[in-house]
Amino acid sequence: MADAPVTAALLVIGDEILSGRTKDVNIGATADFCTDLGIDLMEVRVVADIEDEIVAAINALRVRYTYIFTTGGIGPTHDDITADAVAKAFGVALPIHPEARRMLEARWAQSGTEPNEARLRMARIPEGADLIVNSVSAAPGFRLENVHVMAGVPVIMRAMLEALAPTLKGGRRVKSVTIRSRVGEGSIGGPLGALQTRFPEVKMGSYPQMGQTQVLTELVLRSADDALLAEAAEAVRAMVAEEHVRAGLPATVETA
Amino acid sequence: MADAPVTAALLVIGDEILSGRTKDVNIGATADFCTDLGIDLMEVRVVADIEDEIVAAINALRVRYTYIFTTGGIGPTHDDITADAVAKAFGVALPIHPEARRMLEARWAQSGTEPNEARLRMARIPEGADLIVNSVSAAPGFRLENVHVMAGVPVIMRAMLEALAPTLKGGRRVKSVTIRSRVGEGSIGGPLGALQTRFPEVKMGSYPQMGQTQVLTELVLRSADDALLAEAAEAVRAMVAEEHVRAGLPATVETA
Repeated sequence: MADAPVTAALLVIGDEILSGRTKDVNIGATADFCTDLGIDLMEVRVVADIEDEIVAAINALRVRYTYIFTTGGIGPTHDDITADAVAKAFGVALPIHPEARRMLEARWAQSGTEPNEARLRMARIPEGADLIVNSVSAAPGFRLENVHVMAGVPVIMRAMLEALAPTLKGGRRVKSVTIRSRVGEGSIGGPLGALQTRFPEVKMGSYPQMGQTQVLTELVLRSADDALLAEAAEAVRAMVAEEHVRAGLPATVETA
Repeated sequence: MADAPVTAALLVIGDEILSGRTKDVNIGATADFCTDLGIDLMEVRVVADIEDEIVAAINALRVRYTYIFTTGGIGPTHDDITADAVAKAFGVALPIHPEARRMLEARWAQSGTEPNEARLRMARIPEGADLIVNSVSAAPGFRLENVHVMAGVPVIMRAMLEALAPTLKGGRRVKSVTIRSRVGEGSIGGPLGALQTRFPEVKMGSYPQMGQTQVLTELVLRSADDALLAEAAEAVRAMVAEEHVRAGLPATVETA
């Protein structure tokens, strides 16, 4: 492979996800974002608003992957402790960042909001970090080494991801082909496994679709090598066509 | 506290979640399930279909929490390696389980499906594990010590959770009160922090609601102690009413 893979982990911080009160959508958004950039999202963790847990997760992940993204816990209230945890994980101070303060004050002046201690919490940025612009509500995120700290509110988080994109190096762009089998996983499991062995550079996943009126299994082939991907897709398509015929179905195989 | 807390972690297994192809809904379902039973879901991890990653996550989590739930990777195809990983994590064999085989064969006989090696993979159960009944598609999950292995397909996963419920011990039933503030987090952050300090047994979270026509901050108070929860909720309500008046709004505070 010409390019080394670029990897990432996402750390979702927040009691509200673990209690079920808020249903996370940031995992899916980050996954799509990484896939688009050719970054392999390797792991996601969700932890509670407990400083030691956040510190431990950041330190476990930041040495393993090219990029770490975090969402949640950067607001003005007492349960927003992500900046504290990142500062602790890196062993650096957490002073008021002059530029972050200016960004917030500009927004406050605009909206007639009075500064106070709670609001100023949002300008506390670990020493040595760069700011991530927040085009929605001004309070910035930040990047310290490979750790990118973003808001938990999905619309802000997505705006921050967009702001980050030009600063990230993309990896091998992985392409995928989806092949729809009308016979179930149990029928194609054996031959599919044999094809996976034959094409080790093409990752083959099998996903049963439930609740359909007919059996449908989506086979997803992923590879950074276009030629190999096409060759493997043709082999899988031929195998599925054969299984269709064996099951008394038309040989036609839908791909996407 | 009379009862010790009962804790849990969820391990979501599957490349399709990390690539963004499938948007996970099992995290939210497990979170709701745990909250209903009084189990504290403390952590979630999402890992790829890589045996060593799954083994490491299971071994890291199973010693920390009362219960571990896993979703995904128990189907008949080569990328379904959760049973292998659990057997490896516990250092036990992975034989065909006679009862699992009977369950599958009964379903196959019903539907006229021919047994084959791929389908039989679904009857491989780590030595010493109990089966978790799958009322949807027959292929069972299993429980080995505190690790509960379930399907990734949401409808099957939820059926398995329901099957599991009577076997789990519930913990302190945590109740919650939601108080809706019409002023933003920046205004109430200070006084809310002071109230959190005054009521350490009541966990207070603050969640800004974006994209509304008016500012809205949901304050969620959670506690296993009903009397303390009521007292804290009254104090937070009074604080929010005061902040409403300060902002020129009606003193009325919505709770739920």
